[in-house]
Parts: sequence; structure tokens; C-alpha cells
Amino acid sequence: MKRIPLAENLEFSQIIHGLWRLSEWNMSSEQLISFIEECIELGITTFDHADIYGGYTCEEIFGNALALKPELREKIQIVTKCGIKLKSSKFPDLKMNHYDTSKEHILMSVNNSLKNLQTDYIDLLLIHRPNPFMNPKEVADAFNQLQKEGKVRYFGVSNFLPSQFNMLQKHLDMPLVTNQIEVSPMQFEHFEKGTVDLLLEKGVAPMIWSPLAGGQIFTSQSEAAVRVRSMLEEIGAEIGANSIDEVMYAWLLVHPANMMPIVGSGKIERVKTAVEASKLSMTSEQWLRIYVAGMGHNLP
Amino acid sequence: MKRIPLAENLEFSQIIHGLWRLSEWNMSSEQLISFIEECIELGITTFDHADIYGGYTCEEIFGNALALKPELREKIQIVTKCGIKLKSSKFPDLKMNHYDTSKEHILMSVNNSLKNLQTDYIDLLLIHRPNPFMNPKEVADAFNQLQKEGKVRYFGVSNFLPSQFNMLQKHLDMPLVTNQIEVSPMQFEHFEKGTVDLLLEKGVAPMIWSPLAGGQIFTSQSEAAVRVRSMLEEIGAEIGANSIDEVMYAWLLVHPANMMPIVGSGKIERVKTAVEASKLSMTSEQWLRIYVAGMGHNLP
Amino acid sequence: MKRIPLAENLEFSQIIHGLWRLSEWNMSSEQLISFIEECIELGITTFDHADIYGGYTCEEIFGNALALKPELREKIQIVTKCGIKLKSSKFPDLKMNHYDTSKEHILMSVNNSLKNLQTDYIDLLLIHRPNPFMNPKEVADAFNQLQKEGKVRYFGVSNFLPSQFNMLQKHLDMPLVTNQIEVSPMQFEHFEKGTVDLLLEKGVAPMIWSPLAGGQIFTSQSEAAVRVRSMLEEIGAEIGANSIDEVMYAWLLVHPANMMPIVGSGKIERVKTAVEASKLSMTSEQWLRIYVAGMGHNLP
Repeated sequence: MKRIPLAENLEFSQIIHGLWRLSEWNMSSEQLISFIEECIELGITTFDHADIYGGYTCEEIFGNALALKPELREKIQIVTKCGIKLKSSKFPDLKMNHYDTSKEHILMSVNNSLKNLQTDYIDLLLIHRPNPFMNPKEVADAFNQLQKEGKVRYFGVSNFLPSQFNMLQKHLDMPLVTNQIEVSPMQFEHFEKGTVDLLLEKGVAPMIWSPLAGGQIFTSQSEAAVRVRSMLEEIGAEIGANSIDEVMYAWLLVHPANMMPIVGSGKIERVKTAVEASKLSMTSEQWLRIYVAGMGHNLP
Repeated sequence: MKRIPLAENLEFSQIIHGLWRLSEWNMSSEQLISFIEECIELGITTFDHADIYGGYTCEEIFGNALALKPELREKIQIVTKCGIKLKSSKFPDLKMNHYDTSKEHILMSVNNSLKNLQTDYIDLLLIHRPNPFMNPKEVADAFNQLQKEGKVRYFGVSNFLPSQFNMLQKHLDMPLVTNQIEVSPMQFEHFEKGTVDLLLEKGVAPMIWSPLAGGQIFTSQSEAAVRVRSMLEEIGAEIGANSIDEVMYAWLLVHPANMMPIVGSGKIERVKTAVEASKLSMTSEQWLRIYVAGMGHNLP
Repeated sequence: MKRIPLAENLEFSQIIHGLWRLSEWNMSSEQLISFIEECIELGITTFDHADIYGGYTCEEIFGNALALKPELREKIQIVTKCGIKLKSSKFPDLKMNHYDTSKEHILMSVNNSLKNLQTDYIDLLLIHRPNPFMNPKEVADAFNQLQKEGKVRYFGVSNFLPSQFNMLQKHLDMPLVTNQIEVSPMQFEHFEKGTVDLLLEKGVAPMIWSPLAGGQIFTSQSEAAVRVRSMLEEIGAEIGANSIDEVMYAWLLVHPANMMPIVGSGKIERVKTAVEASKLSMTSEQWLRIYVAGMGHNLP
């Protein structure tokens, strides 16, 4: 498994495991710790969380498992996020799911995450969504305090467009080490809006969510999905892939931006698919044929 | 009234008075000078003009009033603009309203403004609109000359998108100290195109025109206007505002970009509405509920 | 003919001749060399190629002519491009026209261009199209090697949007000296997306392809074409142009970005039209009336 350096003392496995749906898997702590160990054996050492996953429950499930084998903590990198507030029993007075990037909320959210994850530190904290009401000075204050207290080692963002990334970065004392964005053969927003260009320009490796297009690629009968699926099958046959999942992972893994796809499955077989994909190679033409299938028109 | 620093020796009142419609108010010079004094008493010391307002008449009306009490000049900041040429008796040969950002036109326009305003200096001169035919070197030459001659103290732009702002700034010897843009719960262009991000990045406080959405919010039966109006009423009740005007002003005033809304009314009661709004507070969620109402869809 | 400096030791004629359709002109080498000499006499010393023009044939036709009078080489500047791969007898295995910006392809392409053009060096090499799969480090490696070997003097891009330009530039050891973009009264993409702003900001002069809107302006009955044609005729009468071609060239030549239109005709009379245009002047208002005709709505 290729390791991606994000900062002087931070390296991620190129394939990341995502715990978005952990609460739906009905794993016991013992089962989960076994699963985590299997991931580590496959070379996947980086685990992606957010405070809100599973309605504020996934971090805690993970933390309960980790407590069974605390010696694993040093072998893995934990990513989590803050900045979204969900209407929920946790925040009963809210009228709407919304964003909160105040210093107070960031600090509170990280404290909860540390408690839920049963760890002393988070390797990487991300602001979950760009917030048009964000005060970058408050974010900077919060980040400085969290780093000083040893609660968070590194900082990044998620779903940030270039102007948002540059704006926040300007106010921070430390570099943003990633931008977690959605990219797949069905989702080119960040190619089209310059985000991928900016990350290549700055040498910042993106984490990639929904690398399998949220699964629609397997089932949707939309014209776009049918077109992309057919091309993925065609390329899969050419490069010796066992499934179109592998092709989609490979398509991200070979891109020069050091994309780090997040695999969100609780089945180790599906995780292995992503690992298998890292052994595939793809020509420039094959990569672009998938891109063209996703666009729905030829290159100019 | 909060004061916003724009440069080392330039501070604006956060609420600015705009003279766009001065020619329609039928005020005598005596009435206008009383009105200006009332504004100053309310803490509003910054007055926004443009050469073209009122078909090239508003600056002169203001200047005639100011001549009655020249000692007020030092107590206020005068903003004016250049760069638009209107088909008019002033330019009888024009075929079309258009932009002129030539050195010659800028210098001529400022000389007219000084004469009309009956003052020796303009505190802040703005290029009124981005001009696809703008030669930034000519603008830089004009700005240098005007600053050296003491005719203009500081410079800025209006309605500039990020690429236009960066381009002009690169050619100037002095910083652009503001960008006067349209923002309201019905107008998010500058959130969506990165202008607000760039201004936050650079620490440049924007002046805001049409903060009340040009009044459509009060009368329009469009789906968007009805939706936003209803939310403004709801939030108004929550924060103790006396009117939806106050809510709209507060929505701008609490934003971290140091937005400076321009109040364009000749009725002191309506001006007081904006001043009242500066005493209101608003939570992150309330701010975003108005944003969501303006977008017409939930946050992602 | 105005000369445009692109770098310390590189100057182009503001009007450039483009050999895109050379293979269709059925010129003998003798006829072509005469044509080139006529261009030089008109002050046009810069010639624009691409590896792929004429299905990989145009460079060779030009090179065969140049071989008749090798002393012309020092009097002209040769631009060529790489990075597109066409389905063709040259690449029989391709499934699709696509982009290849690998180091290997760039080096191979330049070697072919040198051989076809029968020259030892290319003055300016452009990456033909932005490639979402581009590895900027590979491009940088290729450029460094080509410059060191003396095969290419300067480097640039074509059709790059701002984020793509900035991204590649960041990885290069030398400045990109141009961006060849499509601009005409029917094509404002690069005004609207900030490319022209970025080039003005950086002082990079653009080469302009399709300056006559691909000819549609002369024949199309679309509403836009009729509207623009009518305005070009009106302005032509005002400025003393002999044809709307001249007006279109003049519209580019007077823009402050130092635009360098590429004339793609094999008829010297049509080339002279562009040269004539460089003697015309145009007011700010006239320039913007054409812009407004192209937009289809008034300036804000």
C-alpha cells in the first residue's frame, strides 16, 4: 500500500477506511477491532470519521472497540470532522441542520470526539463544509488552541472550493494538509471548478469521498450511469480488473494528485477490492475514456 | 456605531449613507445639511456618491449643502466613483451607456466631482464597474497622479469579481481598500463567485449596495421574495427586530467580513432603522436560515 | 507591425500566421516559401503550428519549404504544440482522440516536430489543451530537458483556464510566456472565466485563435451572428475599415492585453486585411459596443 505524506510527521495509507455507516453494521466491539486489524494487515491505517456520522454515534462505537486494544492507537491515523450541527437529541433546539464554525463549537466538538473515540489526540481534524458565515479568525484561534493542547495534530478541510481554501489558509498559522472532496466518474465538480488544480498547485493530497459514486453506478438506469458503467466494464476487461469497483478505485489511485479514496464498507471483501485496485495500471487514454464517459461528450 | 478601519488613516462608519437618489428628494441645501448632521449624530459619517448619480446631479446638490457648513467636511468621509459614461447632455455623442477607465476620463471625472462636491479632496474613489477593456496601467497612472495631487486619498473598486480585483491590484502602487458589492438575502452572487472569500482573505471590508434587495423584498410576490420575507419575519420575531429591514441590515452587520451596508434613504427614520439593526445579535443558525431561504434549498 | 515582447529574448509580431489548414492549400514548397517571404515583408514573422495540424502533415509541408531557404529560419519564430493524440495511422491503436502530457509523449512529439519542420529548435512550445490527467512534474521534467538540449527555447500553454495556468506554472522552472486562447466578438469565454484578467495580471500576452469566429460571423443567420455582424459593419463605417474582418482584428489589436491574433489564411490578400487592421483605432465606446453586441445585452 502506497503511503502518502501529508506533512512532516503525517503519512496516510493511500486507501482510507471510512466509518460513515459504522452504526448500520451492527458489529460488536470485538468484531470491529478484528475488522480494524484486518484493514491494518491490508496496509490501510487511516480511518475517517466525523462527529455527526450515524447521528453522532459512530465515533463512540469506534472508540469502544479501540478501548479493547489501545495499543492499536499508535498504528493508525484518526481523521474526524466538525462544523455541522444536526437537528437531533444532541441539539434539540435547532430549527435546521446547519454549520457552526465558531471557536466554541469547534472546541466542544473536538472534546466530544476525543471522549467518544477514547483517544488523547486526533491526527487530522477537518472543517466539514465551507460555511458562508465562517469567521476565519475564530477557526484559526480554535486550531491554535487545539494544536497547543495536543488534542489535534494537523488540520484540513472538506468540500472547500478554491476561494474558500485560500481564504481560510491565509488566516491559519499551519498548513491545511488535505481537502476531502467528492470525486468519481460521475462527479467532476472539483475538476471543473479548479479544486483539483489548486491541490496539485499546492501539493496538497485530497481525500476522496464517494469514490464509487454513492453506488448509483451499479444500479442506476440513467443515461449517464449506463454510459459510465459500460465504459468501466470495457476498461476493466482491458486492464484485468475483477470488477468495476476496482476500475473506479484505480481511476482515482493513478491520478497525479495523490488522491486517497475512502472505502466506506464494513465488509472486508469490499475493502480488499480497493486494495486490489492499487495493483492495476491504467494508460492516459484509458483514464480519459472514463472521463469522457462521465462528461458525456468528447474532449475538445 | 462601529468604525471599520480601511487603511492606516481611513475609518468608515459601518453604516454608510448613500446619495444615489438624492436628486429625487427635493431637499433644500438647508434641509440636506440638517439631514447630514442628523446622520453624523447617529454615528454615520461616511457618504457614498458617484459622478453619475441622478444623471450627474447628486454630487452638486450635496456640494451646495456642504458649502453652507464647510466645517463638516473634516467630520465626514466622502466616497465617489468614476468609470461609467452615460448617454446624456454631458456626453451628447454617445451611442450607449458604457465604461471608460482611461486615465483621461478618470482625471476629468475626479476634477468634476471635486468641483461639484465643493471639496478639495475625495476620501475614497472607486472604479464603478469592471471594464473588459480596462487598461490597468492607465488606471494606475491616474491613481498615482490623483494621490500625488492630494485630490484622492484612497482607492477601491465596485462590483469587481476576484480575477478583476487581483488583476487591477497587481498593477497599483497602493492597496484597494474596498470593493462595493451587492449583497442581500436575495443576492448571493458574491458569495457564490468567491468575492466575499477573497475580501476575507485580504482583510478588505466591502461596502454593500442594495442591502434591502432594492425593495423587492417588501412587495414582490415571487416565490423567492415570499420565502425570504417570511423567514425575515420569523427571525425578526426571534431577535426582537422592529421590521424586516432591521433583520436584513443585521444579517450584513454580523457577518465576519466587516460588511458596510449603504442606506439609501432620505428619511431619517429609515436611516435609524439601520442604526437600530446594529444593536441586534444573530446566531449562526439564524444567519444561515436566512441564507437557506435565499438559496431556496437546504445546506448540503 | 507592432512587436510584442514575450520574454527577455523572444519577440513576436503582433499578427501571427497560423498554418492550421496548410495541407488544404495545395501549395508547392516554392509557393509556400514565397508566401512566407510575403508575410515577413508585411512584418509577420511568427508562425503557429501544432504537431496534429492537417492530421500530422502541416509541419512537414512547412519544413520542406523552409529547407529551400534555410536562411529564413533566423528571421522567423516557430510556435508548435503537443499534448493531443489523434486516432490516426500514426497511432493506430487509439480508441479515441485524447490528451497525453507524459514526459515521454512530449519529448517524442517535439523530436517529430523538429524533424518535420527541418529545424534545430522550436521558439515556443505549447501544451495544446488542459488535461485533467496531467502530471505537472512530468511536464516540468520534459520542459527542463528540452530547454537544456536546446530543442525548445520557451514554453507556454493553450486553452488553459486560470486554475490550470497557475497550477502548471507553479511546477515549472521557467515562466509560461503565452496562453493561446479563442477570443472573438462571438467568443467571450476567457473574459468571463477570468483568463484575460489573469494574463493582464501576469503581463502574459495571449495568442488568439479563431479571431474571426471561425467564419460563422460572415454567413450564420443565428440571432447572435446577425447582431454582431451588423454592429461590426456599423463600427467599420465609423473607423474607416474596409471589411468586418478588419474590425474584428482591430478589436483584438487595441485591447490592452497585447492580444496576438492568428491569421489562418493561405491567401496573402486576407493576411493583408489583418495588417491593415493594425492601422485602425477604436474608442472605448466602439470596443464596448462590439462587446455588448456579442453579449446580447447591455452593460450593467
